Amino acid sequence: MTKSTDDGTAAGSRRRFLQQGALAGTAALAGGLGASSAQGAPDNLPPNVPEWMKVPGEAMGSQRYGTPSPFEKGVIKNIPKNLNQYISASGRTPLQDLDGIITPNGLFYERHHGGVPTIDPAQHRLMLHGLVDRPMIFTVDDIRRFPSQSRIHFIECSGNPVYTKPYGKTASDLVGLLSCAEWTGVSLRLVLQEAGLQPSAKWVVAEGADAAALTRSIPIEKCLEDTMVVYSQNGERLRPQQGYPLRLLLPGFEGNMNVKWLRRLHVASEPAYSREETSKYTDLMPDGTAREFTFYMEAKSIITRPSGGQRLASPGFHEITGIAWSGRGKIRRVDVSVDDGKSWQEAQLQEPILTRALTRFRLPWRWDGKPAVIQSRAIDETGYVQPTLAELLAVRGENYFYHNNAIWPWRIAESGEVSNANA
Amino acid sequence: MTKSTDDGTAAGSRRRFLQQGALAGTAALAGGLGASSAQGAPDNLPPNVPEWMKVPGEAMGSQRYGTPSPFEKGVIKNIPKNLNQYISASGRTPLQDLDGIITPNGLFYERHHGGVPTIDPAQHRLMLHGLVDRPMIFTVDDIRRFPSQSRIHFIECSGNPVYTKPYGKTASDLVGLLSCAEWTGVSLRLVLQEAGLQPSAKWVVAEGADAAALTRSIPIEKCLEDTMVVYSQNGERLRPQQGYPLRLLLPGFEGNMNVKWLRRLHVASEPAYSREETSKYTDLMPDGTAREFTFYMEAKSIITRPSGGQRLASPGFHEITGIAWSGRGKIRRVDVSVDDGKSWQEAQLQEPILTRALTRFRLPWRWDGKPAVIQSRAIDETGYVQPTLAELLAVRGENYFYHNNAIWPWRIAESGEVSNANA
Repeated sequence: MTKSTDDGTAAGSRRRFLQQGALAGTAALAGGLGASSAQGAPDNLPPNVPEWMKVPGEAMGSQRYGTPSPFEKGVIKNIPKNLNQYISASGRTPLQDLDGIITPNGLFYERHHGGVPTIDPAQHRLMLHGLVDRPMIFTVDDIRRFPSQSRIHFIECSGNPVYTKPYGKTASDLVGLLSCAEWTGVSLRLVLQEAGLQPSAKWVVAEGADAAALTRSIPIEKCLEDTMVVYSQNGERLRPQQGYPLRLLLPGFEGNMNVKWLRRLHVASEPAYSREETSKYTDLMPDGTAREFTFYMEAKSIITRPSGGQRLASPGFHEITGIAWSGRGKIRRVDVSVDDGKSWQEAQLQEPILTRALTRFRLPWRWDGKPAVIQSRAIDETGYVQPTLAELLAVRGENYFYHNNAIWPWRIAESGEVSNANA
Repeated sequence: MTKSTDDGTAAGSRRRFLQQGALAGTAALAGGLGASSAQGAPDNLPPNVPEWMKVPGEAMGSQRYGTPSPFEKGVIKNIPKNLNQYISASGRTPLQDLDGIITPNGLFYERHHGGVPTIDPAQHRLMLHGLVDRPMIFTVDDIRRFPSQSRIHFIECSGNPVYTKPYGKTASDLVGLLSCAEWTGVSLRLVLQEAGLQPSAKWVVAEGADAAALTRSIPIEKCLEDTMVVYSQNGERLRPQQGYPLRLLLPGFEGNMNVKWLRRLHVASEPAYSREETSKYTDLMPDGTAREFTFYMEAKSIITRPSGGQRLASPGFHEITGIAWSGRGKIRRVDVSVDDGKSWQEAQLQEPILTRALTRFRLPWRWDGKPAVIQSRAIDETGYVQPTLAELLAVRGENYFYHNNAIWPWRIAESGEVSNANA
């Protein structure tokens, strides 16, 4: 089954880069990686002692807060050029460069409506008022004295991507307004209970302390279910771009509602009908009506490797991997097609599968070097199946803007170049 | 049960900071946080519009790779002054400032024996040779073409802390050579299978590409169980300080064995008896013999809040929280004592509880304002119970150096100051 390609002629530190079959030890890998074989190297002397072993390395403490390798300087947030910074701006996570499910804080996506405020946590206050028995003002330290909880959840912008061609070239262009972190904070339910919710309380209107005073209305059921007032993200305090020092987290709801720089919670019997839930973040249907308060981010997935802008170096084994998520709960299954949707195979899901978190999926694949179209579709625990773009457009029409959770196919050319098959 | 402290005299935007009883809405909180009540504030106007709402915030894109808030500049790695950088140096994670279980990459602990090499991934090679059918040399891209996996695991230095008084003041001083991340890479088992393990293979000797050429021997059983060749950490590529571009991950084994900057795997029938497993990283017993190859980091825990160097602002409700971990598997239970070890209560464990990962525990507590000694003890799924320092010293004697997994009590003074009760 396994055929060694050693030919017995190599000696000393000589090595040869194999074209095919070198790593055929497992079925999944049959067809070949490009690794070289190290034939006849002496047991205690690998070929080439690199320069960086001959001198002491960089001293500790040159970075009391670390940064990535200089060789990774291209892995940065994907921010459009000539952005009108202060009105409405977004920067995307480079999903195609990332592994696993955790987004490092330095690459978490950003979406602002009035820039990023620099808030002194000692001066910041959170006010809770309206239909409560005891209106209150909390300092950040007050919020940190509540019983805490930590959970891993994604946040996704609802315009990710919009329906306007040409959509984008990379996974980041398409769905990079999406990130996932371990959040720590306090249950909003607990905070509301402290203040004493009145029976007529049906909505909580949240306001941010940015220049936009971004305001969204949240149904009381969500506030009492799993909403958190968050102060930490992946262990450390929130980054300014993610709402430092306090933000709301509404697992599975559209990102805009996860109000950052949280300064006010007004408990009310009606929603506020704020700008961000009337003029924006509503969904215009073909008949001219608009869907409003469409909170949930539905099941979705994308292949991140191989994906647009990447190139397969050679035929043979390639793992197909990507991420799936659903605002409704856990991912149940991800199917992958490598034949333009004619047939589908079930991908392996990385454990643990967490509710309203990214789920990493993987499928071994042997590329035969011919043009191909690959794509993934997510199924969540409610049984909902991620639709195609054509299916979405047929129902929603061309005026629809938010909540595009379409399947996104990638085209692989004979050269190995990967591109957006919908563009 | 709940007594409102509103006195009805406040008006407009006036607010009053309550001393006691303001947040007595739940049993756990009885006794009071320090939050203020917002009495009579109009429904649509919170008091004080802060300066940062009156001007646009910082533009997007000023940081294509983000950094923490300037107000968090004190949350950095804990690095001793006057460190001899190039021989053996360490920098600790500020555990007392962190929440949850994920350590952000910028604060991951460091331990080097020859500084931090700056490695060009395009030049880096991993050689696999010795008792294999097909010796091989891999590029980083070769390693990335293998099927991947992602798992959350801690890594801990085995000298964390050493047994020498005064031990340290903070949780970071004591056990800050400990961090936890989501790692992505390839199963070492798969890599070894590609090369074809010979029946006489019993050990794999791993070598790093740093100036120390750090070398450790790993039993073949561990290599075939759950060891990974890792290239990513919390989504992005490894940081230079954590082994960029490739490192070994041996979940639950002492940190030193998780060889960074991995350049060579020599499959052998015997261990190498390298410096780091003979002169160092062995355990000298009272009878003059030394334990060698003591790989596992045993069950351990520490309270991170409140912990040494912190101060309780007032009596009343305080959540006790900390982290527990075991190199043997999952944490089954964490007990907490608030009366100097006389009695113990079971803490709540944050789900999901992952094998060989940090587990966050929490216990609600009402501090009566009197001096107290608080501590935690971990029990892992094997039934092993974290020992006291006295129990460890009685068995191991004063010459023991590594593998100190003692319970670490904190003393709380009447002033609220928290200090190391063993110092």
